[in-house]
Amino acid sequence: MRLDGRYRLVAGAFSRNFEKSQEMASELGVERVYRDYTEMARAEAERDDGIEAVSIVTPHDSHHPISCAFLEKGVHVVCDKPLTVDLDQAVDLERRVHESGLVFGLTHNYSGYPMVRQAAELVRGGEIGEVRILQGEFALGRGAIQLGEEWWRGDPDIATEASVVYDLGTHTHHLLRFVTGLEITELSAEMTTHVPGRRISDNSYATVRWSNGATGTIWSSVVAAGNEHGLSFRIYGETGSVEWRHEDANHLIHRRFGDASRTHYPAMRQSYPEGFSGAFGAVYRDVADAIQAHRRGEDWSGLGLPGASDGVAGVRFVDAVIRSAKSGGAWVRPQ
Amino acid sequence: MRLDGRYRLVAGAFSRNFEKSQEMASELGVERVYRDYTEMARAEAERDDGIEAVSIVTPHDSHHPISCAFLEKGVHVVCDKPLTVDLDQAVDLERRVHESGLVFGLTHNYSGYPMVRQAAELVRGGEIGEVRILQGEFALGRGAIQLGEEWWRGDPDIATEASVVYDLGTHTHHLLRFVTGLEITELSAEMTTHVPGRRISDNSYATVRWSNGATGTIWSSVVAAGNEHGLSFRIYGETGSVEWRHEDANHLIHRRFGDASRTHYPAMRQSYPEGFSGAFGAVYRDVADAIQAHRRGEDWSGLGLPGASDGVAGVRFVDAVIRSAKSGGAWVRPQ
Amino acid sequence: MRLDGRYRLVAGAFSRNFEKSQEMASELGVERVYRDYTEMARAEAERDDGIEAVSIVTPHDSHHPISCAFLEKGVHVVCDKPLTVDLDQAVDLERRVHESGLVFGLTHNYSGYPMVRQAAELVRGGEIGEVRILQGEFALGRGAIQLGEEWWRGDPDIATEASVVYDLGTHTHHLLRFVTGLEITELSAEMTTHVPGRRISDNSYATVRWSNGATGTIWSSVVAAGNEHGLSFRIYGETGSVEWRHEDANHLIHRRFGDASRTHYPAMRQSYPEGFSGAFGAVYRDVADAIQAHRRGEDWSGLGLPGASDGVAGVRFVDAVIRSAKSGGAWVRPQ
Amino acid sequence: MRLDGRYRLVAGAFSRNFEKSQEMASELGVERVYRDYTEMARAEAERDDGIEAVSIVTPHDSHHPISCAFLEKGVHVVCDKPLTVDLDQAVDLERRVHESGLVFGLTHNYSGYPMVRQAAELVRGGEIGEVRILQGEFALGRGAIQLGEEWWRGDPDIATEASVVYDLGTHTHHLLRFVTGLEITELSAEMTTHVPGRRISDNSYATVRWSNGATGTIWSSVVAAGNEHGLSFRIYGETGSVEWRHEDANHLIHRRFGDASRTHYPAMRQSYPEGFSGAFGAVYRDVADAIQAHRRGEDWSGLGLPGASDGVAGVRFVDAVIRSAKSGGAWVRPQ
Repeated sequence: MRLDGRYRLVAGAFSRNFEKSQEMASELGVERVYRDYTEMARAEAERDDGIEAVSIVTPHDSHHPISCAFLEKGVHVVCDKPLTVDLDQAVDLERRVHESGLVFGLTHNYSGYPMVRQAAELVRGGEIGEVRILQGEFALGRGAIQLGEEWWRGDPDIATEASVVYDLGTHTHHLLRFVTGLEITELSAEMTTHVPGRRISDNSYATVRWSNGATGTIWSSVVAAGNEHGLSFRIYGETGSVEWRHEDANHLIHRRFGDASRTHYPAMRQSYPEGFSGAFGAVYRDVADAIQAHRRGEDWSGLGLPGASDGVAGVRFVDAVIRSAKSGGAWVRPQ
Repeated sequence: MRLDGRYRLVAGAFSRNFEKSQEMASELGVERVYRDYTEMARAEAERDDGIEAVSIVTPHDSHHPISCAFLEKGVHVVCDKPLTVDLDQAVDLERRVHESGLVFGLTHNYSGYPMVRQAAELVRGGEIGEVRILQGEFALGRGAIQLGEEWWRGDPDIATEASVVYDLGTHTHHLLRFVTGLEITELSAEMTTHVPGRRISDNSYATVRWSNGATGTIWSSVVAAGNEHGLSFRIYGETGSVEWRHEDANHLIHRRFGDASRTHYPAMRQSYPEGFSGAFGAVYRDVADAIQAHRRGEDWSGLGLPGASDGVAGVRFVDAVIRSAKSGGAWVRPQ
Repeated sequence: MRLDGRYRLVAGAFSRNFEKSQEMASELGVERVYRDYTEMARAEAERDDGIEAVSIVTPHDSHHPISCAFLEKGVHVVCDKPLTVDLDQAVDLERRVHESGLVFGLTHNYSGYPMVRQAAELVRGGEIGEVRILQGEFALGRGAIQLGEEWWRGDPDIATEASVVYDLGTHTHHLLRFVTGLEITELSAEMTTHVPGRRISDNSYATVRWSNGATGTIWSSVVAAGNEHGLSFRIYGETGSVEWRHEDANHLIHRRFGDASRTHYPAMRQSYPEGFSGAFGAVYRDVADAIQAHRRGEDWSGLGLPGASDGVAGVRFVDAVIRSAKSGGAWVRPQ
Repeated sequence: MRLDGRYRLVAGAFSRNFEKSQEMASELGVERVYRDYTEMARAEAERDDGIEAVSIVTPHDSHHPISCAFLEKGVHVVCDKPLTVDLDQAVDLERRVHESGLVFGLTHNYSGYPMVRQAAELVRGGEIGEVRILQGEFALGRGAIQLGEEWWRGDPDIATEASVVYDLGTHTHHLLRFVTGLEITELSAEMTTHVPGRRISDNSYATVRWSNGATGTIWSSVVAAGNEHGLSFRIYGETGSVEWRHEDANHLIHRRFGDASRTHYPAMRQSYPEGFSGAFGAVYRDVADAIQAHRRGEDWSGLGLPGASDGVAGVRFVDAVIRSAKSGGAWVRPQ
């Protein structure tokens, strides 16, 4: 958030433990610390210099109530993905965002990389022709070892059976949609567990049919031992393809049937190579642009910000994976 | 074959058209030319200096009869993959090879690359622990455009509905088995067609369960527009993984959980970087070794040569893909 | 600077043109704007809440007077490299920094990359044995075309004959010293001009002898047409080598004689991949650490911050390149 | 030689030790074995079915007498590089080749790689504009350790002070000439020794001026510990550049100022990826073409075969490196 100087951090609730929260506030130079989000939403709303936007970086199942609390007070929201871990809640939240007219940004940070945006421009601009095959994966290795009660996303009560898809699959799903503009129409999925003793899935495959007749797969895993980061996509069209891998995030390969392949890089966009924080920063910068447009009463829907409806699409995707996997890989529709 | 000087080419039937066959023989410096394989098998068997081995590089559906003709005459066989395009024929051929006691090599050329062999040594030697995930693909682009009546493997009467899996998938399937020693127990597959007007599948996805409980996918495609060659595998175990891609065939990446990744290269095996022809040559060299062992009356089964039983496994894999795809992705067993 | 929240930007002189400076201050949210650095140094020194540190990002030949102005007022300095474009000024500034006891950080930003620091740890930790060969280069392409009177570093009155070495070579020189701890003892250099009509050098080669008997070359260029960024180093020792390239800044290759090569990555250091801004941020974070240590009266010299003496070494290097090139490549000592 | 079936190996002298020579002949299936090249040249010349061409793969200092012996008998010659280790001998041999009218091929094998040929076509075709910078290197690691009396090219009596440049530098020099068509006009060189106790140079740097005003460097080393193969070139012109590295021999990168870079690969030339043996094979194939043209009385000079004059240029290059290094890096002309 602070990368571009577009935000100032002035208030927060940083932990369920108030003392820890105060310590963190002190480190961050934040003056106003609250015991919980309810108190924070109410108190900030009463101040003349109350916060204009809130950033929600809490466990998945708290996204809905916290978002609602701030939206009700007229505060713009930037929320971590997935939007929720419950489809009804997701749809409810999308409706509330719509009714509020407020800016709601979902931090699909990977779409902030310059080369992911370059991919979207190339594909949506027709450079590979009609899209036929979408191959996406987010397969990391840090769950290759059983970590006792501490699961890879903290508390086992919080992690759900489908955490691997919520955590990772939703990123892949968003990137494929972001680059192509397509939506999933049907999928057949499998969820598997590879570490002995583990009670939830740590790996998932989905075979996917997309809205224009394209097909593909989405692989999500935390047991891809040795992988560095493991997020990548390859999208093939009639005349060529694009490939992006997070391990080489500042290059985009554009292959063309029967010709030399082309490698794009940030300097072509008057940009420097970006790292993980820089990509996050780009999404926050877009949210700042949207908030400023909102202040001026301008339409900001065209800015391409990942929002509540993208979040709903993500939750629908996870829901479909779970339903298909439970029925032996039957073809199901996200709905 | 000629790369190492282990073979001399002395006879052949190079075309259905005898004139063309004679021209080709002349170019190749071959003296004895035949009208067809029947004549060749009979005539060579009658000579004192008749051929010791035959190399079969004909359309898939002719592999069975040609192999039989030469095996009956006591001639060792080197045959292109897939073994056959019919499971009964495959099983029959395997039995005949077994009964003949002759050497039968299947040219799974990619297993001739030094770095594929290095992968097999690492994985079978326990360097990545128990195997959990096998991801293989052979996705090339040369079928991205409809080529009229000339389909990517020649005649449409010869290509079958599942040519993409016969041609490409059997390579991937063999490599995964070659590296891990595992067999497929069940799979769920999808076959799709992406080029308008095309009458056979040009793309296939399979989700796979392996004999030790590992899982994975196999993707076969001729519509991956822009891909150079498109064959690769990544195999993940408990403690690490190996990755090999044909585009960078002379490097093998061995990743290890929480440590630097390791890149292996031919000089580590006192070998030079190999190209496509060199990998083929390595398989032919292995066949020559087997034939020489056979001459000396020695056992040659331990040489790891891809043979008839590997070919049967490959045809069973394709057969299972077809059956699953026809029943909407149901889980089926190769049998 | 703002990346970690360690600094607040409260005052500045952003342009020789006061109006432009005011506009920029407004964009940056800075309240106190000055007409020039002299006024700024004086006025801030008189305030109770005056600045604690200043960041100097001005043309090379102004680094000396501006640094002096703030050091005299007891303000810590973060200065862009090269330290100066005059060796006497460089030595004078080093002395003033020493006498002031203040923190002086030189923004050799590339040494902020996690993998450059990993390289230094490996090499200084003996992982490649005694260093024998140092190959460094910074060769970019943006000067491949003559840009009229606007030269690649602005005004032709400001750019000097050796700008390519001041701008680029000093980075390479610093990285090689940073990673190995060695100093140049002698060099033989050549400066060349490749774009017709250009009045200053746009390319330079130096063959170098280092303090432990190692040798190597340093190539600096702005006419390497097509290069993305072009900064890289390879350092060879008795038993292995390290290679780092800015185009793949988040990987470090460590090759070992007769063994697999090893690729290091940020997650091995509990770090995320960094981009250009993140590497700059790391240097600013180190300066903040040094300033805080200074406040507490603690010694901060061991923090490895690039400082005035590194700046002097850099200017000595450029000076030696110029002297050698002018005498037909004679071997000269930096002094 | 045997890769394409263009040659038959029928006679040879394979070792100074006749028994060893006979053993080797038996392994290779060669019937006519000789005690030395003198006997071989005489005996083969007397036969009706005597050899048409000879391949010389002996120590450097024997290339001249052996070549002369066969040329005198009207036998075409394929000779390993360097042509000789003595400039007078090189010039003498070039003259004899010219007078004989026979085919003389120098096995600069790296120019047989499809992507090196692609580079030559691009650069000579003007795709990067006028060449400005040529950076070439052949730096391998197998001499990083002192190997006792057995030096990296065998006998210490055979290896010369400049073996590293003869062995490796001549390859780099040939590739740069092959791709650009330029010749060296002046160079300044340094030869160094990095392994304690070694009596000859193991490393060399040359700064080079080329015939069109371009500049560059050539680095040759056997102490680049950890390097895989270490041969590469990068050539920059007005509008772009090409880069080729032996470690990734089947890709050629063509970078263009301000645009995406382009990666070329063998399939673009209807070729498969080649390894080390395949590149050698391509040069032998070219020699076979030349010999066939010679038989038909046709001109074969336009086939681009590396020949005696290329060999002379290589020896002149080494000679200049030695002269410059001995005079402290003075600029000298190859002559």
